[in-house]
Amino acid sequence: MIFTKIVTKSVVTILPKCSFRWITKQTCPLFPPLQAEQAASAVEKNSAPPVFTQDEVNSHCSLEDGVWVTYKACVYDITEFVAMHPGGDKILLAAGGALEPFWALYAVHNQEHVLEILSEYKIGLLSEEDLKKQQSVETSDPYSSDPKRHPVLRVNNLKPFNAEPPPEILSDSYITPSAIFFKRNHLPVPQVDPASYRLHVEGLPGGVLTLSLEELKTRFPKHTVTATLQCAGNRRSEMNKVKQVKGLNWGIAAISNATWGGASLRDVLRSAGYGPEVAQWARHVQFEGLDKDVTGTAYGASVPLNKAVSEEGDVLLAYEMNGEDLPADHGYPVRVVVPGTVGARNVKWLGRIIVSAEESSSHWQQNDYKGFSPGTDWDTVDFKSAPAIQELPIQSAITTPTDGAAVDRSSEEVTVKGYAWSGGGREVVRVDVSVDGGKTWQVAQLKGSETGQGVEPSPPPGRAWAWKLWEVTAPLPPEAQELEIVCKAVDNSYNMQPDTVPPIWNLRGVLSNAWHRVWVKIREDESEE
Amino acid sequence: MIFTKIVTKSVVTILPKCSFRWITKQTCPLFPPLQAEQAASAVEKNSAPPVFTQDEVNSHCSLEDGVWVTYKACVYDITEFVAMHPGGDKILLAAGGALEPFWALYAVHNQEHVLEILSEYKIGLLSEEDLKKQQSVETSDPYSSDPKRHPVLRVNNLKPFNAEPPPEILSDSYITPSAIFFKRNHLPVPQVDPASYRLHVEGLPGGVLTLSLEELKTRFPKHTVTATLQCAGNRRSEMNKVKQVKGLNWGIAAISNATWGGASLRDVLRSAGYGPEVAQWARHVQFEGLDKDVTGTAYGASVPLNKAVSEEGDVLLAYEMNGEDLPADHGYPVRVVVPGTVGARNVKWLGRIIVSAEESSSHWQQNDYKGFSPGTDWDTVDFKSAPAIQELPIQSAITTPTDGAAVDRSSEEVTVKGYAWSGGGREVVRVDVSVDGGKTWQVAQLKGSETGQGVEPSPPPGRAWAWKLWEVTAPLPPEAQELEIVCKAVDNSYNMQPDTVPPIWNLRGVLSNAWHRVWVKIREDESEE
Repeated sequence: MIFTKIVTKSVVTILPKCSFRWITKQTCPLFPPLQAEQAASAVEKNSAPPVFTQDEVNSHCSLEDGVWVTYKACVYDITEFVAMHPGGDKILLAAGGALEPFWALYAVHNQEHVLEILSEYKIGLLSEEDLKKQQSVETSDPYSSDPKRHPVLRVNNLKPFNAEPPPEILSDSYITPSAIFFKRNHLPVPQVDPASYRLHVEGLPGGVLTLSLEELKTRFPKHTVTATLQCAGNRRSEMNKVKQVKGLNWGIAAISNATWGGASLRDVLRSAGYGPEVAQWARHVQFEGLDKDVTGTAYGASVPLNKAVSEEGDVLLAYEMNGEDLPADHGYPVRVVVPGTVGARNVKWLGRIIVSAEESSSHWQQNDYKGFSPGTDWDTVDFKSAPAIQELPIQSAITTPTDGAAVDRSSEEVTVKGYAWSGGGREVVRVDVSVDGGKTWQVAQLKGSETGQGVEPSPPPGRAWAWKLWEVTAPLPPEAQELEIVCKAVDNSYNMQPDTVPPIWNLRGVLSNAWHRVWVKIREDESEE
Repeated sequence: MIFTKIVTKSVVTILPKCSFRWITKQTCPLFPPLQAEQAASAVEKNSAPPVFTQDEVNSHCSLEDGVWVTYKACVYDITEFVAMHPGGDKILLAAGGALEPFWALYAVHNQEHVLEILSEYKIGLLSEEDLKKQQSVETSDPYSSDPKRHPVLRVNNLKPFNAEPPPEILSDSYITPSAIFFKRNHLPVPQVDPASYRLHVEGLPGGVLTLSLEELKTRFPKHTVTATLQCAGNRRSEMNKVKQVKGLNWGIAAISNATWGGASLRDVLRSAGYGPEVAQWARHVQFEGLDKDVTGTAYGASVPLNKAVSEEGDVLLAYEMNGEDLPADHGYPVRVVVPGTVGARNVKWLGRIIVSAEESSSHWQQNDYKGFSPGTDWDTVDFKSAPAIQELPIQSAITTPTDGAAVDRSSEEVTVKGYAWSGGGREVVRVDVSVDGGKTWQVAQLKGSETGQGVEPSPPPGRAWAWKLWEVTAPLPPEAQELEIVCKAVDNSYNMQPDTVPPIWNLRGVLSNAWHRVWVKIREDESEE
């Protein structure tokens, strides 16, 4: 069935370009073996596929000259697909060459439907000679040196590694243990030697400041900040239920809270010569990671200059997480922690800092991590029309009970727990919880940092970087057989969460912060049955 | 009917305290004339009312000794009512004295049901002698010198004056003309002589800094800021439709945009001796108006110190509005403009600035202008449990078409206009508009400051103080007979408006920022009928 579909589509697509018809040999891995009858019939209609040299493929490496790629024994003209690639024009990195090293990096491609799409663009075979050459260059797994992870993590993607803890464990501790802190890697974890590690600070008139790890630790006072990080895609799975989006299917736990220790970015920039009078053209501070793809392109992002240099911005060049060296998955030896700002700007394995007039030009700053209207689709989206996500909006979720759980009628009440957080240093001031789907509401008890000294006083205005855990006990409504438990939080700018998911749905599934809902059954006691 | 109700309740309330029964004479204005039969029956059950001297009334001026007040010829023990007073414990200002001067100030009391409530607490009559004395002190109208206002304004309350422009006029101009800028006064407009005006800056170690208007204008550079002000109660009428709230019944136009000119508060505080090392105990900056109630209590509010002293806070001591002297209704000669912050903190007729460790102790800071859960009512509310509103949440509304308007089928499309704004300097980045009640959405065109040079570049991050007007043209759905037009805005922290009003309803009706909805009829063309 798949085969028939492929041939049909392939013919339709290819004809206008190449004016020939052919079907694949079994050596071409995208096509399953033919049934005898199908094969005979297909062969009648088609001639032998053309064969291209690697040099011919290499020469098609731009939208102007056409974009050709190879995968195993086959050659593809993907020129028309470039605009439709979910990962944006990063696909052009493979133009004129082999897909294998990129797919090894972005393992999301290892799915049958990706091969189906690719097959529509097939135009011929790679010459036997070039194929042999290519196969002799063994593709090594760039993820082979990734660290071991805690088995309790729920893995959304293995390569690059993306995983979240079970929600009910998440809300057990105000400070998330590093081992279960959600992991969101875009690329393989780089192995960095702390002795030879150097951080470069560029873009200022005085030239480049280069710091060793030791210098970063000794030349600048150590600051500690307890800050919550959240992935822009946290709770994406709820958007997927409305309509399919592109991205990892995160649950509610792509958010965690840690105490970070390191040098103040402000101090380092001033040491590198920055001052309000020195770089008046500067608007952004870019960060570049040491994690790189096969072409050598590093992960990158930027934040507005005023966040980076403000004393109240509390931006750290962190070398400690929860009192220990940063773990490999969290950016060892140095990462940026930009409190109140989406996880994607908290660049890990930090290699370069660049003070600049422009935002980072990286894919992740320009063509990803932006929000759009629910009516915007992949045909109409203009990434330039939306600002890069920086501060995140008010958020909360229920960690216990979990969706589909049951409570006993005899318990007469249900205890609901969760987290709440807002971006930009806005403090969560209230969480409302409903057990009847939002008709009536109770105010939850907010829990602070649990020092044993009671709830700490509010942080200074605009510097509430850490989440609040919360809890409320609600009586079971006598008539109800099922509870729809809902939570919504309010920050000190009195921003509230939207009621429902569809009106905030967006094609990348980011910024999913509607009221969180779980359905819980009430189990009648056996003695009463 | 009213009379019967009153007597019954009065007996129940009064008996445990005073152990006597009586009914009123016709001289007591709260009680309507009796029907002959009722009167005869009532007289049988009651003895003559007791008579109190003014001295006796005066001695009951605290919750401990009881709170007595007089109104015209009658004496009331309102001790038990104090906790229920919608205006909070300001009612204690009248303890031991006459209500008239306060009611002249807060004209909201001039309603029949207020007199009904008062009558429940009646305990006797004021002595004839004291009544004569009181009547000889004529109560002058403190609002007699209020300025003339533009007749197009829709008046919500006359004394103090509160009014908003018609929405369709509001969105006609990016800069709101001062005459139709919404007016929100808490007290009579004070008449201030610019020559003798003095601003006092207090609380700093160097002592009080006193500035004349001339000094404020000449000793400090003039800054101009275009900033939108919004009343916390804007759109309260939509909450009233869900369930009655306390407060002025504002429509969608208790918001306006102006260009303000004046001295920077930061400059003035520094000139008064403030510095980060000088007043490390300081956390707030209090403002006191020259508008006062009969007891001499001035309108007051405060903002966090970091907002007041930050260069990026852009707080002004404004003496100009839209290029001219401040109008009387907007604080002549000097007001505070705190961009991004609720109107109530933008104190008008500014008399004193006090740098302090504590928030303003005023009624409006402590016991008003705060948000609560929809489940919180006047019996359970604890004003200490919620923060004073400072930055306001994301807001938008449709100014045209107005609710209930009609569009012709033959026009085939409808043009929708409105405003959008967010507090805290967060820039509005998108407005979504639906003509089918929120099922499908179009993105509106945002309009900047209309300088004729096209839309201006974005303001620096965190300093987008002015609203954006927006417009979109949508095709009329062929089948629809009525449109439910909805708008919702998004700011650059990607905060969104909540979908519906009931879950954000609160007893004071503040922070009403759910999606705005208007219903518009489609008028079939006569030729087709």
